[in-house]
Amino acid sequence: MIILYTDFTLQGPYVGQLKAAIYKQYSNAKIVDLMHDVPSFDVKHSACLLNSLIQYFPEDSVFCCVVDPGVGSARQAIVLKVAGQYFVGPDNGLFEYLLRSNDKLQAYKISWQPAQLSTTFHGRDIFAPIAANIAQGNFSGIESISLDSITCFDWANDLFEIIYIDAYGNLMTGITASGISKEAILELNGTKIQFAKTYTDMPTGKLCWYVNSNQLVEIALRGQSAANVYSSKIGDIVV
Amino acid sequence: MIILYTDFTLQGPYVGQLKAAIYKQYSNAKIVDLMHDVPSFDVKHSACLLNSLIQYFPEDSVFCCVVDPGVGSARQAIVLKVAGQYFVGPDNGLFEYLLRSNDKLQAYKISWQPAQLSTTFHGRDIFAPIAANIAQGNFSGIESISLDSITCFDWANDLFEIIYIDAYGNLMTGITASGISKEAILELNGTKIQFAKTYTDMPTGKLCWYVNSNQLVEIALRGQSAANVYSSKIGDIVV
Amino acid sequence: MIILYTDFTLQGPYVGQLKAAIYKQYSNAKIVDLMHDVPSFDVKHSACLLNSLIQYFPEDSVFCCVVDPGVGSARQAIVLKVAGQYFVGPDNGLFEYLLRSNDKLQAYKISWQPAQLSTTFHGRDIFAPIAANIAQGNFSGIESISLDSITCFDWANDLFEIIYIDAYGNLMTGITASGISKEAILELNGTKIQFAKTYTDMPTGKLCWYVNSNQLVEIALRGQSAANVYSSKIGDIVV
Repeated sequence: MIILYTDFTLQGPYVGQLKAAIYKQYSNAKIVDLMHDVPSFDVKHSACLLNSLIQYFPEDSVFCCVVDPGVGSARQAIVLKVAGQYFVGPDNGLFEYLLRSNDKLQAYKISWQPAQLSTTFHGRDIFAPIAANIAQGNFSGIESISLDSITCFDWANDLFEIIYIDAYGNLMTGITASGISKEAILELNGTKIQFAKTYTDMPTGKLCWYVNSNQLVEIALRGQSAANVYSSKIGDIVV
Repeated sequence: MIILYTDFTLQGPYVGQLKAAIYKQYSNAKIVDLMHDVPSFDVKHSACLLNSLIQYFPEDSVFCCVVDPGVGSARQAIVLKVAGQYFVGPDNGLFEYLLRSNDKLQAYKISWQPAQLSTTFHGRDIFAPIAANIAQGNFSGIESISLDSITCFDWANDLFEIIYIDAYGNLMTGITASGISKEAILELNGTKIQFAKTYTDMPTGKLCWYVNSNQLVEIALRGQSAANVYSSKIGDIVV
Repeated sequence: MIILYTDFTLQGPYVGQLKAAIYKQYSNAKIVDLMHDVPSFDVKHSACLLNSLIQYFPEDSVFCCVVDPGVGSARQAIVLKVAGQYFVGPDNGLFEYLLRSNDKLQAYKISWQPAQLSTTFHGRDIFAPIAANIAQGNFSGIESISLDSITCFDWANDLFEIIYIDAYGNLMTGITASGISKEAILELNGTKIQFAKTYTDMPTGKLCWYVNSNQLVEIALRGQSAANVYSSKIGDIVV
């Protein structure tokens, strides 16, 4: 299974061309669109979110991840093998949280280049064909490298920030729910936030936090868009 | 064929995770996204719309339907078998119109629970795996129940209301077109509406009604968004 | 592979119903959503964009193309065979640029009609089943016609206009990049526009043009939406 994780949005031909490039290389590929609206050009929050989602995919999944503000520049193109799953994408921090959370890792550099390479669409031209190859057990075009050659960042382990806002206006944070007590009172722009078990347990009109379906702390207003009512955006600090 | 009918929107990881859960259970599943923008949290209008769409799908289709404002509460999780098609989802009225329109029905309760169950995402954790099982002819995890145990509502058979607004601003109603004369003059907020056969027969700038491709009465303005011009929304009354 | 190219948007049941109609006829069809947000009701710009995208698909692809403002009127339903690829859709100019760019062509008229034909959704009722047949090598329902019977238009070969605006606000033009010098200064509503090789080479805050991943001239503002900042829309003239 090849899983797509990009900031392409569903507008335009980009996702369709990515898939066509995969099918060209591997006509029986099974492709799942995980997200195409990950925080746009925002590697840090996309990296944190990705780490919370991969547990729901089978062991031999190949993730084709493209959040790549530096496309066309000198950044490496890489592949990581993490506990049986493969991650293909740019070496810009997008796999930072995967790297930290796991100790059995292998890193590869993509050395292959297509005959025709666009300057703006390495997703289609490089990452898609490599992901298609790997999903078929073909590891040509990549070369083992040391983990030390992967670019690393000093972002916090738990991001006390909003990392994603869904269509309902719920505010997903980068806080691992298992690391925080149900008694904890969080705070967003001066508003205190208590725990609630489910949507239906939430008092109307009051921000609550709960453990979302990806095991992250999420903040919501029952029946309303917390993002609109509190003018929240990705990157806002939660304390 | 497994057909997805939800109010998840295409934002966020929700649809992708639903599909991954299906493929985990049934790796060769064929999945069709019917709609992910059904009226949000709005069981009545989603139920009416669903009933108009199922005729275009093969007999052995399995519909995975998730409009579930009460997720995490005590509402049952059910499966209905209606004329060869299966419907998996919450017992909250979403299948009300299917139940009325058919007499050869079988009802089941989902008794299976996964090892890990989130409080907010039963679509991924319960409905998707059960739909995947049924599509493979595996009926474990569900138990036959009496039709009387399904929650019923007293909504009108034909909803003289707007039940869905499409991207063009066309206003879909819950009125079955075969039950209404082409001479009928409808009315929306005081504006009279005549019948037109096709878009190209419509006079410019005048609301007309026609039989849409799902056999429902639909109201439109040629070349404009009726919804914008008439500030219409789902639930508005048509007389 | 069947490729979908429509102006349906991803809202509503339309794309799902198109796919169901394909699977009904050809249960093992492989379907790719190329675009569902091509310029709405806008045949000329959709035709130009289509011609730039087909090179990235395999030779035996079947394109199911629906931009059809005249649906239900007398316009023909046609199939074109162009260098091994098939194009199914309305005879309204949507294939104008394919016709011009190629000389080994065959034209067919769709003579088949389904038992039940809606007036507004020939995509589902006619084009999808025919595309599914052709993808399986079944050419019943279509009849060879002369190329002279295809409706033609006198649109310019290179459209010095904006033909599509993507989610980032980048302005795609209908200008073939190989036909224009890198020294060329373009102009949009009085603003001069110089060439840049990639996003990362662009000066901040200045419109630049570059060769996009489909070999067309594209105009962008680094890190901003050119469409918003310059209030641009499809059809705007570039000189």
